Amino acid sequence: MKTGILEHQSVQKIEITRINGRQSFTCTDEVSVEEPLGIRISYGSDGQKQSRTISVTMRTPGNDAELAVGFLFTEGIISGRDQIRKVNHLQAACSVNSGNVITVELSEGFVPELMSADRNFYTTSSCGVCGKGSIESIKTVSTFQNLEKKQQKVALETIYPLAEKLRTFQNNFSATGGIHASGLFDHEGNLLALREDVGRHNALDKLIGNAFLTGQLPLQEHILVLSGRASFELIQKAAMAGISIVAAIGAPSSLAVDLAKEFDMTLLGFLRDNRFNIYSESSHVKIIIE
Amino acid sequence: MKTGILEHQSVQKIEITRINGRQSFTCTDEVSVEEPLGIRISYGSDGQKQSRTISVTMRTPGNDAELAVGFLFTEGIISGRDQIRKVNHLQAACSVNSGNVITVELSEGFVPELMSADRNFYTTSSCGVCGKGSIESIKTVSTFQNLEKKQQKVALETIYPLAEKLRTFQNNFSATGGIHASGLFDHEGNLLALREDVGRHNALDKLIGNAFLTGQLPLQEHILVLSGRASFELIQKAAMAGISIVAAIGAPSSLAVDLAKEFDMTLLGFLRDNRFNIYSESSHVKIIIE
Repeated sequence: MKTGILEHQSVQKIEITRINGRQSFTCTDEVSVEEPLGIRISYGSDGQKQSRTISVTMRTPGNDAELAVGFLFTEGIISGRDQIRKVNHLQAACSVNSGNVITVELSEGFVPELMSADRNFYTTSSCGVCGKGSIESIKTVSTFQNLEKKQQKVALETIYPLAEKLRTFQNNFSATGGIHASGLFDHEGNLLALREDVGRHNALDKLIGNAFLTGQLPLQEHILVLSGRASFELIQKAAMAGISIVAAIGAPSSLAVDLAKEFDMTLLGFLRDNRFNIYSESSHVKIIIE
Repeated sequence: MKTGILEHQSVQKIEITRINGRQSFTCTDEVSVEEPLGIRISYGSDGQKQSRTISVTMRTPGNDAELAVGFLFTEGIISGRDQIRKVNHLQAACSVNSGNVITVELSEGFVPELMSADRNFYTTSSCGVCGKGSIESIKTVSTFQNLEKKQQKVALETIYPLAEKLRTFQNNFSATGGIHASGLFDHEGNLLALREDVGRHNALDKLIGNAFLTGQLPLQEHILVLSGRASFELIQKAAMAGISIVAAIGAPSSLAVDLAKEFDMTLLGFLRDNRFNIYSESSHVKIIIE
């Protein structure tokens, strides 16, 4: 079995502002890279090759061949090594894409039973399997993209207690210790809504769905607090709801930071113990430190 | 806008065995419920209604109407409340399904631009939107389902250090604090492979893909350690790889526990500080406590 795998960065250095107590300083930090990977299979004999995209997943680059075959195996599409001829990154016309599409070429004569695995499949648009494409496609569907934004000020005294408040309110809701939360706060630090779910994207969809159904969108003057890490998907949802400030208890991914900057959002991470990092600063949000 | 929403449990009580030091006792614990939700839209005028499933997501039941409209809004399929006529749980023929399919009926004359949102969509089989269906569908594709399993013994001395070992090896790999890990250990507690990713399912696919490519499957005499929570999806992947013992640093979901029991796997959760919970005990794995 041959592979033609490109090397990719899994960690990216970025400039951030650290806030600790009332001190603020700029430094270089590392975030985990998050980029889409399109997993394609190609099958049939040489004369009649067919290929199709089976899945697009947001992943950290590295071990992409393992990821692709591991996915195909755990989804029941392949069951043995002899069913694979080679695994290659696509050399795409769009150079930024080239490390983000991987093709698993199946052995001649082996045709997978694709129907049995339909359970989990993503369909995908023909292009755009790169972070840039993902960000562009959000712009085109964003209802509040051209909204005129108000200037806002938020005090440290509001931000610091948010993590603890989220945890306290969560403890009142659930006793399992195994659930993600999204909390919506106002600029005085009052909790307006909290939603929980085993899936972090679901907790946020519930929160935004509540605001949608009660006519509160866009959530311009609110702070969204995430109980865990900030992935691309969560920032995308926050951007769609017009949210200006997102504070995560955990780390953001590279693509989450890129998207927050592109959408002029303030993105805070590692909010705990009177500290946090600023990964993206909105031009219309001022954090009052003094 | 009318809704017809069924009430569902978000927390489930189950019997577990707690291990603390060398003490073992049985008690009742709570886990977060995880069940699939099929999100359907119906549109067109009364004479010509069309409906289609837009997404299937593994979620914690509760606030399903919010989840459905929040998803449709953040995916750019709907943009205003006037586009929705009503939101209803499907009254399905299969009663176990009835709370797990929700239909958002769009207002007459409003036809969404579905193509713009294809980025994220799942396709889905016609039935099976319930935990039971999900478990059944895995059985049909599992390569190692009928494997004859060996009797295995694992000592507490092997299990307790696994969480710390995973963390130590992870620190050597990444400095971002924002990444999931899957680690594969042998019965003596030696790390055989470690994979990381912003997506927990990707970290596990990479690990299993590595075992696949190097001819190590099935992973019968191994222990899989997960850096976070154990969801249905992760246990499904472990089951496909023939793994008998899964130890999670975090909590399992209800469906993860159900699946582990169904596949005769040992599932441990909250592995930390010389303690863990046993959520499922395999008939061919004995944990040596004395």
